[in-house]
Amino acid sequence: MCDVSLQKKVEGGITAARGFKASGVRCGVKSQGLDLALIYSERDCAAAGVFTTNAFQAAPVIVCRQRLASGRARAIVANSGNANAVTGEQGIRDAEEICSTVADLLGVDRQLVLICSTGIIGVRLPVDRIKRGIVEAVQTLSPDLGDAAAEAIMTTDTKPKVSAYEFEVYGKTVRIGGIAKGAGMIKPDLATMLCFITTDAEIEADLLSRCLRRNVGATFNCLTVDGDTSTNDSVIVLANGASGCQVKEGSKAYELFDVAVGQVCLDLARAIAQDGEGATKFVEVVVKGAVDGHDAKNVAMAVANSLLVKTALFGKDPNWGRVLCAVGRSGAEVVPARTSLWFGDVLIVKDGESVGLDSAIMRSVMNEPSLRITIDLGIGNGSVTVYTCDLSYDYVRINAEYHT
Amino acid sequence: MCDVSLQKKVEGGITAARGFKASGVRCGVKSQGLDLALIYSERDCAAAGVFTTNAFQAAPVIVCRQRLASGRARAIVANSGNANAVTGEQGIRDAEEICSTVADLLGVDRQLVLICSTGIIGVRLPVDRIKRGIVEAVQTLSPDLGDAAAEAIMTTDTKPKVSAYEFEVYGKTVRIGGIAKGAGMIKPDLATMLCFITTDAEIEADLLSRCLRRNVGATFNCLTVDGDTSTNDSVIVLANGASGCQVKEGSKAYELFDVAVGQVCLDLARAIAQDGEGATKFVEVVVKGAVDGHDAKNVAMAVANSLLVKTALFGKDPNWGRVLCAVGRSGAEVVPARTSLWFGDVLIVKDGESVGLDSAIMRSVMNEPSLRITIDLGIGNGSVTVYTCDLSYDYVRINAEYHT
Repeated sequence: MCDVSLQKKVEGGITAARGFKASGVRCGVKSQGLDLALIYSERDCAAAGVFTTNAFQAAPVIVCRQRLASGRARAIVANSGNANAVTGEQGIRDAEEICSTVADLLGVDRQLVLICSTGIIGVRLPVDRIKRGIVEAVQTLSPDLGDAAAEAIMTTDTKPKVSAYEFEVYGKTVRIGGIAKGAGMIKPDLATMLCFITTDAEIEADLLSRCLRRNVGATFNCLTVDGDTSTNDSVIVLANGASGCQVKEGSKAYELFDVAVGQVCLDLARAIAQDGEGATKFVEVVVKGAVDGHDAKNVAMAVANSLLVKTALFGKDPNWGRVLCAVGRSGAEVVPARTSLWFGDVLIVKDGESVGLDSAIMRSVMNEPSLRITIDLGIGNGSVTVYTCDLSYDYVRINAEYHT
Repeated sequence: MCDVSLQKKVEGGITAARGFKASGVRCGVKSQGLDLALIYSERDCAAAGVFTTNAFQAAPVIVCRQRLASGRARAIVANSGNANAVTGEQGIRDAEEICSTVADLLGVDRQLVLICSTGIIGVRLPVDRIKRGIVEAVQTLSPDLGDAAAEAIMTTDTKPKVSAYEFEVYGKTVRIGGIAKGAGMIKPDLATMLCFITTDAEIEADLLSRCLRRNVGATFNCLTVDGDTSTNDSVIVLANGASGCQVKEGSKAYELFDVAVGQVCLDLARAIAQDGEGATKFVEVVVKGAVDGHDAKNVAMAVANSLLVKTALFGKDPNWGRVLCAVGRSGAEVVPARTSLWFGDVLIVKDGESVGLDSAIMRSVMNEPSLRITIDLGIGNGSVTVYTCDLSYDYVRINAEYHT
């Protein structure tokens, strides 16, 4: 997606950028494991966020949207285990109370503290437990605890999701890093996707917001595990300027910064698809030749969300008929006689007709742990890449076994 | 959906109406079982059809659409085991050759023979085997073999789907009956839904077509097992006038006829949802209070197709958060503070807030083999009922285990 040759992958995730600290503690919202993350900048940050389009917006989403109107922030507190969603006015008061506790302990303006939650829906947050946890989270804040924060936002995730890059410009080094969670849906409830990104670039909040929105569009919004969108999905970026490098619109520095934001988002989005609940296979659906980008995305999402396609991939079956069927019902403009299809590098359908399968070659393609499905609609220049995974018994188990 | 008090349920399915014969034979397209159905009217029929909206239309769909332009037909031949889809010009020639064989043996105009296929995609039909089967199918045609025809169109269906009604009007008895197949998707390939309806009413093809279209909209188009639409979906109705009862627009007879068509379609659509692949629970999603019918259907389909909702239902979990989440992402106009939700008759969410669950009551509701989920959006008069089922391990098994 982006030219990353000028970007160097670095360690440290959410604390890779200078002037950021983090921590992850256990406060007892989940039945086990770390469940409270704190991210803190030593100086004020430009801040921006992208949030769920679901009509039911969780309390923390409502609070973050309101606070981010200022374009400034200092800290993010996030709990796993309870989404604080469909909790009415009380939920908003709970979220604000938690932010205030963080603000008081850090000695910052409470309007500069953001909050995210993920987990069960319709149940009040255990505010007292979280407030006790915050005391420990503040005490343990460290530039070395980014990984603990990444772990504390996990739910059904099997591994933490971390990415960071640095680039040089104007003789200065700029770092940008992030953590994310999401694996289909939260056990027990929702498919919440949370992502936090920090950078020591100096950038205006408005430009930061546009950069984030653009890159989220090409990465997290091109990600689907099961087609569901939660009440809590949030991507937040903080930029504290500690690198001393000014990133201005139209500059070389912005170009590099934009690529780095895109790369961090792409790494984390791919990590979420790879860790999809019960997934045995990572799948990229590449659509090109569509009338426009909108049609391309409709086709890619129809294929990526098709249960028939996803179960066939789990069964390692090169069932191209199911792919064409999903293409055909996507609502996009499709001309069968112009449509071609590849599994990996193997051409399967050329201009709407099967070219015949070599079963030995297909077996080896389907046995790989990742698969690229390419669809060329042959009627325009619209293209997109969507990231997804297969659908296994374990997906059903994970999501059927929990009892509220 | 319809007032059926004047309709009497009768036996006989596709051969309940006078002047129709049917048969079901084995010709060897599938590895076992009956796989070729023939439906025949002793006299010319007014005929109409509704077909898949998939951009990839199977050869038999293309042939039927063209032939139905005349509004007349005499016979339908249908095979299971091979969809004759993505087979190019050869597929159309194959379909036409089979129709001609039927026409010659029955002594009718070949343009009056319709054809449907369901099964594997991208593979040429075994035309010779089917032609041999047609000889037997023609020889065995009988008013008593409607059930054999119903069986011969089955694929992953676990039971044949049959319905028939009669009503009295102007001192005459009119019968209407149908058969259908569909259970999620064909093993090995597509979610094809086929339905054939016959009636001895005397009705113009144009009125018959409008009646069919309207009733399909409220029944088969409100049915979803896994959200996929195949290349072969077809609903065809034949009316041969053998009852001597004229059904004219705006008449009492039309009113009764319309209700009967709706009831046959509804019975068969419900039977398909009940027999959804791997299904353990039949689910009706009722949406009311939407801004309009279009919004109501978007909400109902988002809930009915949500993997999170479907797996929760399989787990007998009253996970109402997943239902609200699907409502919220449906794209319909939703005001959370006006939204209410019931599982069965139990109010769960009133005006956007949880009313608290009695776990004993919920356990008994969730243990039933069928469940009605009602969502009142509280902002208009749009309503719809959608029919679906849960998602179990067996769905994944059925659709992953087959290898092309």
